Amino acid sequence: MTKIAVVMGSISDWPVMQLAVQQLADLGADCERRIISAHRMPATLQSYGEQAQARGIQVIIAGAGGAAHLPGMLAANTVVPVIGVPMQSRALNGMDSLLSIVQMPAGVPVATMAIGQAGAKNAALLAAQIVGLQDSKLQQALQDFRLAQRREAQRSEQEL
Amino acid sequence: MTKIAVVMGSISDWPVMQLAVQQLADLGADCERRIISAHRMPATLQSYGEQAQARGIQVIIAGAGGAAHLPGMLAANTVVPVIGVPMQSRALNGMDSLLSIVQMPAGVPVATMAIGQAGAKNAALLAAQIVGLQDSKLQQALQDFRLAQRREAQRSEQEL
Amino acid sequence: MTKIAVVMGSISDWPVMQLAVQQLADLGADCERRIISAHRMPATLQSYGEQAQARGIQVIIAGAGGAAHLPGMLAANTVVPVIGVPMQSRALNGMDSLLSIVQMPAGVPVATMAIGQAGAKNAALLAAQIVGLQDSKLQQALQDFRLAQRREAQRSEQEL
Amino acid sequence: MTKIAVVMGSISDWPVMQLAVQQLADLGADCERRIISAHRMPATLQSYGEQAQARGIQVIIAGAGGAAHLPGMLAANTVVPVIGVPMQSRALNGMDSLLSIVQMPAGVPVATMAIGQAGAKNAALLAAQIVGLQDSKLQQALQDFRLAQRREAQRSEQEL
Amino acid sequence: MTKIAVVMGSISDWPVMQLAVQQLADLGADCERRIISAHRMPATLQSYGEQAQARGIQVIIAGAGGAAHLPGMLAANTVVPVIGVPMQSRALNGMDSLLSIVQMPAGVPVATMAIGQAGAKNAALLAAQIVGLQDSKLQQALQDFRLAQRREAQRSEQEL
Amino acid sequence: MTKIAVVMGSISDWPVMQLAVQQLADLGADCERRIISAHRMPATLQSYGEQAQARGIQVIIAGAGGAAHLPGMLAANTVVPVIGVPMQSRALNGMDSLLSIVQMPAGVPVATMAIGQAGAKNAALLAAQIVGLQDSKLQQALQDFRLAQRREAQRSEQEL
Amino acid sequence: MTKIAVVMGSISDWPVMQLAVQQLADLGADCERRIISAHRMPATLQSYGEQAQARGIQVIIAGAGGAAHLPGMLAANTVVPVIGVPMQSRALNGMDSLLSIVQMPAGVPVATMAIGQAGAKNAALLAAQIVGLQDSKLQQALQDFRLAQRREAQRSEQEL
Amino acid sequence: MTKIAVVMGSISDWPVMQLAVQQLADLGADCERRIISAHRMPATLQSYGEQAQARGIQVIIAGAGGAAHLPGMLAANTVVPVIGVPMQSRALNGMDSLLSIVQMPAGVPVATMAIGQAGAKNAALLAAQIVGLQDSKLQQALQDFRLAQRREAQRSEQEL
Repeated sequence: MTKIAVVMGSISDWPVMQLAVQQLADLGADCERRIISAHRMPATLQSYGEQAQARGIQVIIAGAGGAAHLPGMLAANTVVPVIGVPMQSRALNGMDSLLSIVQMPAGVPVATMAIGQAGAKNAALLAAQIVGLQDSKLQQALQDFRLAQRREAQRSEQEL
Repeated sequence: MTKIAVVMGSISDWPVMQLAVQQLADLGADCERRIISAHRMPATLQSYGEQAQARGIQVIIAGAGGAAHLPGMLAANTVVPVIGVPMQSRALNGMDSLLSIVQMPAGVPVATMAIGQAGAKNAALLAAQIVGLQDSKLQQALQDFRLAQRREAQRSEQEL
Repeated sequence: MTKIAVVMGSISDWPVMQLAVQQLADLGADCERRIISAHRMPATLQSYGEQAQARGIQVIIAGAGGAAHLPGMLAANTVVPVIGVPMQSRALNGMDSLLSIVQMPAGVPVATMAIGQAGAKNAALLAAQIVGLQDSKLQQALQDFRLAQRREAQRSEQEL
Repeated sequence: MTKIAVVMGSISDWPVMQLAVQQLADLGADCERRIISAHRMPATLQSYGEQAQARGIQVIIAGAGGAAHLPGMLAANTVVPVIGVPMQSRALNGMDSLLSIVQMPAGVPVATMAIGQAGAKNAALLAAQIVGLQDSKLQQALQDFRLAQRREAQRSEQEL
Repeated sequence: MTKIAVVMGSISDWPVMQLAVQQLADLGADCERRIISAHRMPATLQSYGEQAQARGIQVIIAGAGGAAHLPGMLAANTVVPVIGVPMQSRALNGMDSLLSIVQMPAGVPVATMAIGQAGAKNAALLAAQIVGLQDSKLQQALQDFRLAQRREAQRSEQEL
Repeated sequence: MTKIAVVMGSISDWPVMQLAVQQLADLGADCERRIISAHRMPATLQSYGEQAQARGIQVIIAGAGGAAHLPGMLAANTVVPVIGVPMQSRALNGMDSLLSIVQMPAGVPVATMAIGQAGAKNAALLAAQIVGLQDSKLQQALQDFRLAQRREAQRSEQEL
Repeated sequence: MTKIAVVMGSISDWPVMQLAVQQLADLGADCERRIISAHRMPATLQSYGEQAQARGIQVIIAGAGGAAHLPGMLAANTVVPVIGVPMQSRALNGMDSLLSIVQMPAGVPVATMAIGQAGAKNAALLAAQIVGLQDSKLQQALQDFRLAQRREAQRSEQEL
Repeated sequence: MTKIAVVMGSISDWPVMQLAVQQLADLGADCERRIISAHRMPATLQSYGEQAQARGIQVIIAGAGGAAHLPGMLAANTVVPVIGVPMQSRALNGMDSLLSIVQMPAGVPVATMAIGQAGAKNAALLAAQIVGLQDSKLQQALQDFRLAQRREAQRSEQEL
């Protein structure tokens, strides 16, 4: 059963959000992917949030830009952990997206990642870390990933 | 029939938002007032937005702070004009509230006011300007208000 | 009679502001378009503001960048609702335009939109929402637009 | 067995971080609490991170201010999910803390919360949401908390 | 004949702007003082700007806060040098005032000072430096002021 | 006798600062141009400032970027009015240059212009406005310039 | 011979800068203390910088606020290492001081510390680290300080 | 014996950090260069810091971007002076890197340089200034460099 969802506010977020999907695939984790615009599809957003837990979703990754309401509104409709990825917006470079996602009021948390590509990849890793608490295979994949990136950093030293 | 609604995300926004209510009263305009938390009452938010127009509401004033999703999500659920008032938040002085309200994506506008008290008063004035397009009494009240504030500014010169 | 005006401070704002004109046209709404520089044509600005209401203008959309005084000074000269669109300025990416437009003092509101293209489109939509309060055809066009953009978002999901 | 750790960089962070501890207690969740300064106790930080998983810790909440390295360095030493809480710093109001925590490079995520008190409370809620994926009692406590805060918001409307 | 004008947008700016008046008095320079609100008294602003030169005004000091349009709009209506003083605004600490004053488009300069009290004093000094180009007594007063402040700085070293 | 100096901190500032020189030339005003690096030529900076007045300089335009100390240090060494032009810096887009120039302490003013090209042109105009107080020909050139830019703005309306 | 100098731009910086003097004293290091205002005493600044090395000064700590030119101008006049401490300024909380100190152009470095009190203490520690490279007693004092602060952090854990 | 180390968090920092290496070479100073990722190689970071002094390293230059923990964590593990170079990050232009490096808590200083290339060059110069306190040849090279850059600035004046 798919336990991780990758949701974005617009098809224009896909070039960034696909890095989350790819990172999950690299770890051997499945995910469903959805476009749900908080502002154009508010009723869909609400029912998606309300039904996530019953559908077996354990983590939702949500990417959005500008007045990025998607992650927070999903979080308002579920107690499944929601991870927010701020898109690098055109004018304000994602500072608007970041603040709109991270500055949630007490009561409804969103696990906020870095702006842009690094944030998308890290959202996948955090989702895997959460699901991996009950999934020893995914846990191992994460340990392997950590080791691999350490080795890659070490190898890169030879390029200096 | 009440045509203007003043909505806020939390009772803690009331000391600021009551300035909007007071300003409307000074202009002779009625309003309904509601607390609707985008994050704690998402279903209420959605139905309130969906029904506003049918209930005869012509303008919604919405105040919120931090990751201020209330104005934008109301706007997503109605074509009644929504005016957003960014609260002066504790850590970031309302810059987070401002960006979360004003940086709406193309398709769903929120008429954003200044941060804090000036914004609350101006939200009332803008609401009256909109409703006043079909209400000559309110129109006149606005003209009188403009004249009064000009005279007050002129009078204050004597205090120098 | 034309009820909506699209005003900008400089011909260099046209590539952005024409999105407002186009959006209005898509909704079947007419508009007049003007270049009125607050700093180079202050007398024109003032008389334009003063006469707008008598000429039947019901909403003014004003785009400006940097120390963007045009929307606020128009608003100071009329009780017709003024919608401000902050241009994405060269050095500060529109943060200067945004603050110069949105941080109006109590007494004279400007309905501020997002920086740049999204703001220009949304200004048109908000203007139509305001005029649409008395114009059932425009009201319907807005409902159709909302439906169309929802469908487009839903369709885009198939591209994932 | 205690599954949640609340770690902070300095005793001066305690007035904020105790809100996380209190929120966990309100949900019926236990936690261990530690002061581990990234800059004054780097060796302790590293061994704490390395041993967390083996000790049965499932989530680490880490609060820090200024050049807030604690959450990121803990995350570098474990695949247990780390939640970062940016303290509201003296000069920059927590913007430095926020960026130092959230802007992690690809490979090592930190689940970043809002600046200050709201962030501390939400860190506890997110930790409970994560642990609650395998703990139906905690899951229920979260559902009850959501319901209670909705009711409180609704009740507060009567104060208007 | 009075050559220097000190203008402010609101009586609330007086506690800061009186430092400019006092500094001018300390240098033996006369000034006229006016409250002219750009937004509440736009017609007065325009005629004041247009007539300044003919009235013998050689420098205008203008203080304003928030969307601070006063200095720029005065500058648009005269070729007399205009010095702008950004007030320290409530929410954004004067960053909005600063950007609204300094980011003038090519064609209409405003000589912008520091935010708040230092800016008000320096506006007076710059005005005196400009008028002093043709007034040897004022020139001497400025030289004496510079010497006095150097001596005061030197004397303060003994307090260490 | 040359009354206006255009000084810059580095040859890399020339593409921007030449707009000041060109604008002065368009107004029929002469200027001297100098490269004086505050950090690489501090002794030259000091003697240049000290001697400016005696050499008949009436206004100094100084452009600098980053930790832009040139305008402020020139101002510290003369009572001749100094106009500062913040360069658009690589990383921070000129926000560093702007704050380093405008936030002068009480006692030593720098007349700060907009960031980049608009600022360079406006520095020339302000210098001409200052010198023009005693130079009716330059005064007339400024009036003509204002008229010309108004006409240009009006003509551009036909391009819409 | 005194090897460390603590210089500040104004007596108003003393409450912060005395923390540097105190920290040096705690480490057993002597220092000279001076008030040298970059803007009010530019000639003193220059000669102080030029003579520092010959006088045996090995590190200069310089605190300044706003358009904080003191550290950079001292650095321009000596190859002795200069450590800059940004004061927490009134309006912009030290962001202006920080950028004015840290954004030095290539060629003249200033070792920039945190804004305010932490920066003043750390300036003393860095100065001691630099001088300690040739002074085993000071080196030992630094090691002892590190150990002491680690112990204090550990002890504080008992207060939780 | 090599006394200066140039460390960076990632091979992607090399195009900037090689300017430090080159500047050191130009001054005749040797350095070792290392890639040590704070987040991917935390154990290496710690042992590198702990052993630096014993290995004869006298200054460490550390470049990092985003949540730039490398310089601060090295500084936490040694009393050898650490110079931090903030990389110009993708979304936030290095403001995140700058604050993450400079806002160190009292007790552990990092000598912070400008963002990007200027910072890398200046890190080399500051390192040479520190080591040069005991190395008359390096001291002379620095004096020569200062003279050379002054001459280059003077020569560039002819290009105007």
